[in-house]
Amino acid sequence: MKERKPLRSEMGWSKPDSITVRGYDLPNELLGKIDLGGMAFLEITGRKPNPREAEVFNALLVTLVEHGMTPQAIASRLISICSPEAMQASVAAGLCGVGSVFAGGSEQIARVLQTALDGKDAGADLQAIATEIVEDHARRKAPIPGIGHPLHKPIDPRTPVLFAIAEKNGYRGRYVALLEAISATAEKKLNRTLPINATGAIGAILCELGFPWRICRGVAIIGRAIGLVGHIAEEIRNPIAYEIYERAEHEVMVNATEKP
Amino acid sequence: MKERKPLRSEMGWSKPDSITVRGYDLPNELLGKIDLGGMAFLEITGRKPNPREAEVFNALLVTLVEHGMTPQAIASRLISICSPEAMQASVAAGLCGVGSVFAGGSEQIARVLQTALDGKDAGADLQAIATEIVEDHARRKAPIPGIGHPLHKPIDPRTPVLFAIAEKNGYRGRYVALLEAISATAEKKLNRTLPINATGAIGAILCELGFPWRICRGVAIIGRAIGLVGHIAEEIRNPIAYEIYERAEHEVMVNATEKP
Amino acid sequence: MKERKPLRSEMGWSKPDSITVRGYDLPNELLGKIDLGGMAFLEITGRKPNPREAEVFNALLVTLVEHGMTPQAIASRLISICSPEAMQASVAAGLCGVGSVFAGGSEQIARVLQTALDGKDAGADLQAIATEIVEDHARRKAPIPGIGHPLHKPIDPRTPVLFAIAEKNGYRGRYVALLEAISATAEKKLNRTLPINATGAIGAILCELGFPWRICRGVAIIGRAIGLVGHIAEEIRNPIAYEIYERAEHEVMVNATEKP
Amino acid sequence: MKERKPLRSEMGWSKPDSITVRGYDLPNELLGKIDLGGMAFLEITGRKPNPREAEVFNALLVTLVEHGMTPQAIASRLISICSPEAMQASVAAGLCGVGSVFAGGSEQIARVLQTALDGKDAGADLQAIATEIVEDHARRKAPIPGIGHPLHKPIDPRTPVLFAIAEKNGYRGRYVALLEAISATAEKKLNRTLPINATGAIGAILCELGFPWRICRGVAIIGRAIGLVGHIAEEIRNPIAYEIYERAEHEVMVNATEKP
Repeated sequence: MKERKPLRSEMGWSKPDSITVRGYDLPNELLGKIDLGGMAFLEITGRKPNPREAEVFNALLVTLVEHGMTPQAIASRLISICSPEAMQASVAAGLCGVGSVFAGGSEQIARVLQTALDGKDAGADLQAIATEIVEDHARRKAPIPGIGHPLHKPIDPRTPVLFAIAEKNGYRGRYVALLEAISATAEKKLNRTLPINATGAIGAILCELGFPWRICRGVAIIGRAIGLVGHIAEEIRNPIAYEIYERAEHEVMVNATEKP
Repeated sequence: MKERKPLRSEMGWSKPDSITVRGYDLPNELLGKIDLGGMAFLEITGRKPNPREAEVFNALLVTLVEHGMTPQAIASRLISICSPEAMQASVAAGLCGVGSVFAGGSEQIARVLQTALDGKDAGADLQAIATEIVEDHARRKAPIPGIGHPLHKPIDPRTPVLFAIAEKNGYRGRYVALLEAISATAEKKLNRTLPINATGAIGAILCELGFPWRICRGVAIIGRAIGLVGHIAEEIRNPIAYEIYERAEHEVMVNATEKP
Repeated sequence: MKERKPLRSEMGWSKPDSITVRGYDLPNELLGKIDLGGMAFLEITGRKPNPREAEVFNALLVTLVEHGMTPQAIASRLISICSPEAMQASVAAGLCGVGSVFAGGSEQIARVLQTALDGKDAGADLQAIATEIVEDHARRKAPIPGIGHPLHKPIDPRTPVLFAIAEKNGYRGRYVALLEAISATAEKKLNRTLPINATGAIGAILCELGFPWRICRGVAIIGRAIGLVGHIAEEIRNPIAYEIYERAEHEVMVNATEKP
Repeated sequence: MKERKPLRSEMGWSKPDSITVRGYDLPNELLGKIDLGGMAFLEITGRKPNPREAEVFNALLVTLVEHGMTPQAIASRLISICSPEAMQASVAAGLCGVGSVFAGGSEQIARVLQTALDGKDAGADLQAIATEIVEDHARRKAPIPGIGHPLHKPIDPRTPVLFAIAEKNGYRGRYVALLEAISATAEKKLNRTLPINATGAIGAILCELGFPWRICRGVAIIGRAIGLVGHIAEEIRNPIAYEIYERAEHEVMVNATEKP
């Protein structure tokens, strides 16, 4: 038999009289002493945020909670009328949509920024790097993540606020600067309005906070999970999913069978 | 054709230059001005918590984030090695397990408490109500949710801390008192140690905060979503899911085929 | 340390030159020799169906594949436009809705029928049992699963066909007879048209086939998984989910902001 | 307001006395007249398979049902002990893992094969195309999907059987030939045993049946959904998930706290 690798984890464990989470005594060192955003930071990174990190990280998460009647929110509501006894399944259904199109952008731009600056020292020529990124995407006909927005023009109103919160706390550094250079370069090259959107701002600031790009999608997932619970709570108070379903079902039937 | 019901929602919407969430201007009234726990309260209830509510609600959520190597955490890790490109699917998989057995207790006890005190005035005889609840469950041979714990004995170390935070902020009221009476009555009747567990404390305090029982599971879902992202982040840094899988697969094969 | 229970499973395992599934040599005894419905029967029950069982079971499954533009189908389509790279997440999202309301009825009626006939011999008075079931549901103001349909009146056109297929193959027995008695008794008592619906017919026939009620929902899950893949395939060819989403989002925004 | 696109679908709809699925009268033209594999073909492609297509497609699906104690199966079992009241959530959890690593290979190789032969006529030089594919993957250091297997060596025992079933029915054509050329070329170039695995054989045969690569993953999803229901049914009869969970939780706790 193959030798077995021991199972190790630093997340948490319990004994009869104690509960340890990320190295802290949960009841005595965390409850009442850390807010949820800080706890999420601790849970993901393994260390408590300092107050400046906590302020920035909370702002990023708050941005991600509620984006209106998204496809994910509608999906969660539809599932909640099918399985009202299993709210977790409704939230899970909507969360399945935190993928590449509607919410994955933070991960994508963080990957671009981290790959570009990996191993580069403080004196790196950000404009040259931005130009290379824009031209590489143009060559591959790939959209650049984190810039442009179908609705919010000429700017995404969340972006300057997030950057201001980051700056105030000392987390507006070269990742943000590189993304600004990318946005400006792309606007010039493509002759279009391509402002940094909230997803881009969040991705860049997560880089400033030291989050590896591979876990950035997790931050969107956390925000949206809260938002989906909110939508299901509203669906319980004021149902609309059944109406959305009936309209679609009826229209499909009419369009299929009442052809002249 | 049936008359159609208009679709209404108070969650949020966007215009080119503004984003409204639960009636607030997201960039200018929420970002940097509310923490994630407060945002979750706003998202679910439609109003900002006052500082006392925010402290209590954050403590409840923080309690729910990390419970160690639970079945849900293992499931999320296993799915993350199958679909590493779709972190949302891994979190969704684990969330599907926030059901009746490992996390649904807050909803269940909140339902018991709210049903029992519905329409009762301040002078209600809590001991009589508790006795009735305990006897009703005994008659139906149903376990009483929110009390007893397989590991944490004689008390769950989270419970007194959560009750102290609630008390300090003015949210230790008759729902908590009723649950305490239930616990004491059940211990006497069944001659067993049945302390209020964290799930029970959370359910009772959510009643104090005015949460309808039907949405209490949502609070557990939020906490666990954060925890599952944390587990997947650790799985990326230090994988163990493949080992758990291989051990199980190997043992099943050996036990099935190497019979004497 | 607690003594560990050995992990045993009869599902399947592999060796370098062989693959065993439910005790059969997959390549040589199953591939090309069993159809998918028969394979599903084998996978769930552990034995190959005889030809009569296979015909009946395939008919039940075929009934469950496609129910039009259901909430689950819409949810799967919505998620597929969010995470087009993760089709499994779209199907999983829709499957989360195979719960109590739209698809759980087979399980519920199978439970009623199996509980009622458990330990009863062939001479049991089905009419008396049916009366008791109808009166018990009336007392609890609970709807009787498996009878009545919002659209299909006076009969569900699938029911007589399924019963005929069952009868032809020798699987129209006392579970079907009891459900017929329940339907007739309920119609008389409640003075309403309450025909056996397809869900009820499927539940009763699954009892005839010997399926424990606890796994009957699995049969609906299998059928719907196929249907959801079909809907996603159509969504790829001819997208409508984006339109459903945009209409809802737009209407919510208009109704919220353009109040007089 | 933007002009709305009409919602159209050919999947199915109901009227009080009829149910139409993919253009057929479900009760009278499908029930008892098509098996589940054929129904899946109809549901996905919009037309009934001929008997030869039905035999081949059923064989592909049967191959995909049961792969032993996979990570997905363990995940479904773990969730089923958390949410026993919501079997659909357990299946959904496991399905979330039908991603790139354990089950996505059919889609990947179908994409490679279809892209390579797109627009090529019958006289295309398959060996030259195969060489190009192998060299392209080597250049990008990307593994070639559909060939090689960690356990099944020197051949995957399913592959010759699937190819024989395809051949017998007239569906062993140039996609299969191209994959065989790829396998042989890669073995020579990399000096390793790289037989066509079952996933590769399924992908190539789906190409022969005319399935676009974008929906090939759906075939794996269907097979696995059946398999996961089977695992949950066994978990109900003979539970092992709790044991898997307890072992992992215990070992993590011991390794974390009993350091010397």
